[in-house]
Amino acid sequence: MDFSELFINEKLALLLPRYESFVQKHIIPLEQEAVYGSFRGALPKIEELRDLARKDGLFAPHLSEKDGGLGLSLPDFARVSEILGKSPLGHYIFNCQAPDIGNMELLHQFASEELKEKYLKPLQEGKIRSCFAMTEPQHAGSNPKHLSTTAIKIGDEYIINGHKWFTSSADGATFTIVMAVTDPENPNPYQRASMILVPLDNPGYSLVRNIPIMGDEGEDYMSHGEVKFVNCKVPTKNLIGKEGFGFALAQERLGPGRIHHCMRWIGICERAIDLMCKRAISRELDPGKPLASQQTIQNWIAESVAGVKAARMLVLMTAHRIEKEGAKAARTDISTIKFFVSDILMKTLDRSIQVHGALGITDDTILSFWYRHERGARIYDGPDEVHKSVLARETLKKYA
Amino acid sequence: MDFSELFINEKLALLLPRYESFVQKHIIPLEQEAVYGSFRGALPKIEELRDLARKDGLFAPHLSEKDGGLGLSLPDFARVSEILGKSPLGHYIFNCQAPDIGNMELLHQFASEELKEKYLKPLQEGKIRSCFAMTEPQHAGSNPKHLSTTAIKIGDEYIINGHKWFTSSADGATFTIVMAVTDPENPNPYQRASMILVPLDNPGYSLVRNIPIMGDEGEDYMSHGEVKFVNCKVPTKNLIGKEGFGFALAQERLGPGRIHHCMRWIGICERAIDLMCKRAISRELDPGKPLASQQTIQNWIAESVAGVKAARMLVLMTAHRIEKEGAKAARTDISTIKFFVSDILMKTLDRSIQVHGALGITDDTILSFWYRHERGARIYDGPDEVHKSVLARETLKKYA
Amino acid sequence: MDFSELFINEKLALLLPRYESFVQKHIIPLEQEAVYGSFRGALPKIEELRDLARKDGLFAPHLSEKDGGLGLSLPDFARVSEILGKSPLGHYIFNCQAPDIGNMELLHQFASEELKEKYLKPLQEGKIRSCFAMTEPQHAGSNPKHLSTTAIKIGDEYIINGHKWFTSSADGATFTIVMAVTDPENPNPYQRASMILVPLDNPGYSLVRNIPIMGDEGEDYMSHGEVKFVNCKVPTKNLIGKEGFGFALAQERLGPGRIHHCMRWIGICERAIDLMCKRAISRELDPGKPLASQQTIQNWIAESVAGVKAARMLVLMTAHRIEKEGAKAARTDISTIKFFVSDILMKTLDRSIQVHGALGITDDTILSFWYRHERGARIYDGPDEVHKSVLARETLKKYA
Amino acid sequence: MDFSELFINEKLALLLPRYESFVQKHIIPLEQEAVYGSFRGALPKIEELRDLARKDGLFAPHLSEKDGGLGLSLPDFARVSEILGKSPLGHYIFNCQAPDIGNMELLHQFASEELKEKYLKPLQEGKIRSCFAMTEPQHAGSNPKHLSTTAIKIGDEYIINGHKWFTSSADGATFTIVMAVTDPENPNPYQRASMILVPLDNPGYSLVRNIPIMGDEGEDYMSHGEVKFVNCKVPTKNLIGKEGFGFALAQERLGPGRIHHCMRWIGICERAIDLMCKRAISRELDPGKPLASQQTIQNWIAESVAGVKAARMLVLMTAHRIEKEGAKAARTDISTIKFFVSDILMKTLDRSIQVHGALGITDDTILSFWYRHERGARIYDGPDEVHKSVLARETLKKYA
Repeated sequence: MDFSELFINEKLALLLPRYESFVQKHIIPLEQEAVYGSFRGALPKIEELRDLARKDGLFAPHLSEKDGGLGLSLPDFARVSEILGKSPLGHYIFNCQAPDIGNMELLHQFASEELKEKYLKPLQEGKIRSCFAMTEPQHAGSNPKHLSTTAIKIGDEYIINGHKWFTSSADGATFTIVMAVTDPENPNPYQRASMILVPLDNPGYSLVRNIPIMGDEGEDYMSHGEVKFVNCKVPTKNLIGKEGFGFALAQERLGPGRIHHCMRWIGICERAIDLMCKRAISRELDPGKPLASQQTIQNWIAESVAGVKAARMLVLMTAHRIEKEGAKAARTDISTIKFFVSDILMKTLDRSIQVHGALGITDDTILSFWYRHERGARIYDGPDEVHKSVLARETLKKYA
Repeated sequence: MDFSELFINEKLALLLPRYESFVQKHIIPLEQEAVYGSFRGALPKIEELRDLARKDGLFAPHLSEKDGGLGLSLPDFARVSEILGKSPLGHYIFNCQAPDIGNMELLHQFASEELKEKYLKPLQEGKIRSCFAMTEPQHAGSNPKHLSTTAIKIGDEYIINGHKWFTSSADGATFTIVMAVTDPENPNPYQRASMILVPLDNPGYSLVRNIPIMGDEGEDYMSHGEVKFVNCKVPTKNLIGKEGFGFALAQERLGPGRIHHCMRWIGICERAIDLMCKRAISRELDPGKPLASQQTIQNWIAESVAGVKAARMLVLMTAHRIEKEGAKAARTDISTIKFFVSDILMKTLDRSIQVHGALGITDDTILSFWYRHERGARIYDGPDEVHKSVLARETLKKYA
Repeated sequence: MDFSELFINEKLALLLPRYESFVQKHIIPLEQEAVYGSFRGALPKIEELRDLARKDGLFAPHLSEKDGGLGLSLPDFARVSEILGKSPLGHYIFNCQAPDIGNMELLHQFASEELKEKYLKPLQEGKIRSCFAMTEPQHAGSNPKHLSTTAIKIGDEYIINGHKWFTSSADGATFTIVMAVTDPENPNPYQRASMILVPLDNPGYSLVRNIPIMGDEGEDYMSHGEVKFVNCKVPTKNLIGKEGFGFALAQERLGPGRIHHCMRWIGICERAIDLMCKRAISRELDPGKPLASQQTIQNWIAESVAGVKAARMLVLMTAHRIEKEGAKAARTDISTIKFFVSDILMKTLDRSIQVHGALGITDDTILSFWYRHERGARIYDGPDEVHKSVLARETLKKYA
Repeated sequence: MDFSELFINEKLALLLPRYESFVQKHIIPLEQEAVYGSFRGALPKIEELRDLARKDGLFAPHLSEKDGGLGLSLPDFARVSEILGKSPLGHYIFNCQAPDIGNMELLHQFASEELKEKYLKPLQEGKIRSCFAMTEPQHAGSNPKHLSTTAIKIGDEYIINGHKWFTSSADGATFTIVMAVTDPENPNPYQRASMILVPLDNPGYSLVRNIPIMGDEGEDYMSHGEVKFVNCKVPTKNLIGKEGFGFALAQERLGPGRIHHCMRWIGICERAIDLMCKRAISRELDPGKPLASQQTIQNWIAESVAGVKAARMLVLMTAHRIEKEGAKAARTDISTIKFFVSDILMKTLDRSIQVHGALGITDDTILSFWYRHERGARIYDGPDEVHKSVLARETLKKYA
């Protein structure tokens, strides 16, 4: 028994092995083609797997049963997310990938029925994709109150102007939700911005480029867009929630999103440990003397396993708390897992690569993909340093 | 709500604040005198607090109600242990201090009724103290199968000869349990030794010295003895358990002992964080600019808080597992917490000292006591490196 | 004055600013095109810069004046190498790039006049490129005595069969030097292999692929080949040095090569620190509050600067020693700088990326190139762990 | 040849082995008695060794030949200091111990002839001891411009009032130099304080206590005093240098003092490595399998040796710079070595202790003394964090 089984109810106990088996049998074999090859070229095979997931009743685990999902609670979905994290394709196959999952949540809670019908429904069904345009190249992402993108209301339209980047998966998406300043004079800087849905066939919108990240422009879902809004007009009814609620919604969106990311990172760690152990057992320094006999490598395995165990506990506890008390109450817990788990992620990947030697830096394993594309884990959603300050200041409040 | 409250039942919810209050109100104020001054000299005051603990119904939380305790399960006692750990005197006041608590457990499970009546009863009542003689200066503690101490059975007596050290609290103890080789020819090195109870007024026993540890010989309970057995004769009925069961019993003893130590270390961390925060708020670099405004200090607070949260989860989970499945099933979990928590302990103490500046290295706070006397945490009960190997080899088994 | 100026003679004092200026003015501006774009496509511009270097009298600083170079000693060349390391193109422009520089050294010392005329001369002039085939996918690079590639002498030919990888820059090279077993029965495993020059238009040789490294296959000089030798016949006079001297020559080659790499890494660190400081000064968290005001970022800058200073001293000292006493005498020093400097390299790059935030993981700076392609620094030429053992065992010899 | 021999001139080449031999043969054997026993009780033996040092012509290496010393330059004395650092008694025996050495320098440069005759002469001869009263318990030592101690000039006397601590070696000293505010209204906070010599038989001075540091009050030279000045009157001619020059002189004093400390730390590291290697070779895990065979222990040895090599280079370079350009020019170099070397010191001591296992935390080796008493190395003379900021801000200046 693994510690974490303490948290597993009967429903999960049946589900998790099915997800595990699906990932191992169907998804991992597709990695070389879809992750290192062309994601777009692999879409037909990916869609086949999505169909299989639908047929198996495993599709969209995060959605309510009414919406075609499995109706899992956040802590239960977290456990599924850990398994899906073992492949870069995992979440996508089951239609619970960022940024779409966050947008589903936003639209579900705060969009009009009309927007839901038009955008949420096909999004939930996996027929379209979406993106989220918040970060701006000219402002430090660690202080989100500074935004230059504006949405000026004239009549029943917003006219949006601005420059965003790290709009992940913009390439091929059907719509974006954009964060734009609607009330620049509001004395509270956190009440100046709003979220607005923009269909991407809008002539005022353009995808400038897929930003090359660590040598890789990516394409389609696997990309990070730099986008521009130039006199981009959308009806005011495309507003999500209320005017000035942009930050409040962003915070709401971040809580479950952090759980999702952290459990995905833990899944990555498990895969990295798995690869590390396989390599340590099979690679020989001298005949009959495998790498696994080296104490340094034993240290790395032990430290990775211990770290992942600790990380998993912290994230599951945070998921429980969000479920019970809401994201706001769990704010410092969410900051805590952000920096704690990303640190363990980077260290575990690094150790696994080192155990693989020269092979570890090639694309013959999946490690090099994560080494490059998860370096951002310590940066996106606020750099670790910001989250440490959040936790410290909260801790110090009791002493003031 | 703290994460960890998820594990707290109603009984605990009432008990824990009472222990917390007792520690803060009665025990911490006695520290300067009993920890930095003379422990022996402070014994009358310590006994007063023990009486108060008895009166409050808080004494010996680990013992069954029948034996005068509170009948707490291991996980519940772990939570109490965390609070008691906030002072070096905490466990002693409530008579649940190492090494006595381990000896109580051993005698309770494996001693004859006669030994129980004569030794266990007064030990449980706090009337006598005991010690445990295992480590030998001539052999690496990390490989316990090498022991030179022998117990030769002649008639109805064992004749014990050997040299031990780190026999903690030997000074003033009434008896020791000694680990000695009774079957040197046994092909299984783990079945050569036995545990035997030796009353310390035995003429064949001598306390060579209290070993000066980090500049401090200590005295009475707060000491680590070097002891000798020279033709030390004890009746064979003083055997604990069966002959050749020494290692099996030692392993059994270690499991709950590790929980005890780890939760105590977590209590130390909490006290260190508490002192660090108080100092950070009150010490000014410039008028109006407290240390707490420095980002480095915020980082240290955040990293300490996160580490302690993670450590607590791991230890409580391990306690649950020992409770449900026994120490043997939880063996690698026990190794995991040993090195994971000791690392967090050392880092947290170190950061708290640094935040205190010059004050941190003085004996004006309790930090310097722990800095010195808990450096051993990475060494005793097997150095961290050994436990990392245990976890690694267990992890690798699946791949062999 | 920088510490290191203590080591700078008059000649260098004039030369170094000229190299610095060349790198800043001519090479760095070409990076986006040649490093992130197509190296092959940029070759015409690169050749223009080589011509400029020749005209400026800066070309091939490592070669003797007779051979068209500057006749610098190893320590002096190390100082040039540090400057060239500031760009991934630096060494190439001046024709002192690995693996060609190592091959020039080998041929210069150990090749026949015929081979020198045919291969060394055009190599020194920058008219052809070369590669070095040693590492094999089936054997741990950390224990080079295991090699499967064989060269069987039949008549006046060697027939070579084997599989190599990480044959850097094979794509487009004119010849390789291959390490192959010529005397498999030799009781000394370090005397079994020889080095043989193989022209790459040989029908028995094939480039299987440019190995994708961290998402990047590369091309031409900027690539790492997987190559095969199938009944590849070369005349016996293509032997470099003597039969069975493969390892001795490899060791000889490694010493100056390590200096070259380490100084290049230090150059990378300096560029990373430069970028980190520029970013810290220019990026604002709030108006008027640059990143540089954050203590964490100050810590990173300080730790990077201190580490680089220390690293530079160690490497220069080692270069002096190789120059005076030979690579063999400096063996443990060479192992020391390998792991000491690669550690500082990785940490410095990592900190600089973190200071850049999201920008740091894009290809809009050169950092992401090094983050990916220098991860191998802890692996190639023997993983750090092996070099630590070398140093430890040498240190322990005095105590045996 | 060790790298560092590059810096060794002929004079040193003869001297260093003599110091090494003196330390090994005469000083280390006295450690148990004088360091762990009573320093005061061991003074007769210590004085015998001082006589021997005088006879051998090794006494007071830092003083000019005219003043009875060896006339070594700062870099040359640094090399001697490294050797003396191998024992806590080393510098004392040769009369070049802090704080006396700093006071000798101050008086030599800035005191009147009268003060020199009365205090400097016997200090140089080792007939009296002195101390330096700067740090105050109520102010952060990291920001030395805040001082509460005042010296009011009335007639030809200063009347000093104030509270100091960490006045090292006050117990038994003949005089102190005290830092006191003489010009509280000066707009430049760094020009408010002056240095004044106070004979300790002055009725206005009292030694409150020897501060218990890490469990150890110490005595005589080996102590850190808390002292008070209450209406303490001294003649104005006891001023050192000019009024308002307190900080300038303190800075001047710190430069060579930092070299002294850093080289002493390096000496400690060498002793710790020596003990670590001896233990690793002699302690067996199993018969024939010494600790030294464990890769983790090899890592620790290698990392320690590499770190010490790097540290030594940095310190010697800084010493050269101070010698050539003065302490002010070397200000950031001095900050650099402060935090760089103290980090290596703590890590090396920690590793050596861990290799010793339980023995490492006892007073049976000298390690536990340093573990406790050098924890302050990261705090005194400004905590490491302050020195990192100094280096970072200096580095950033070029970019402003």
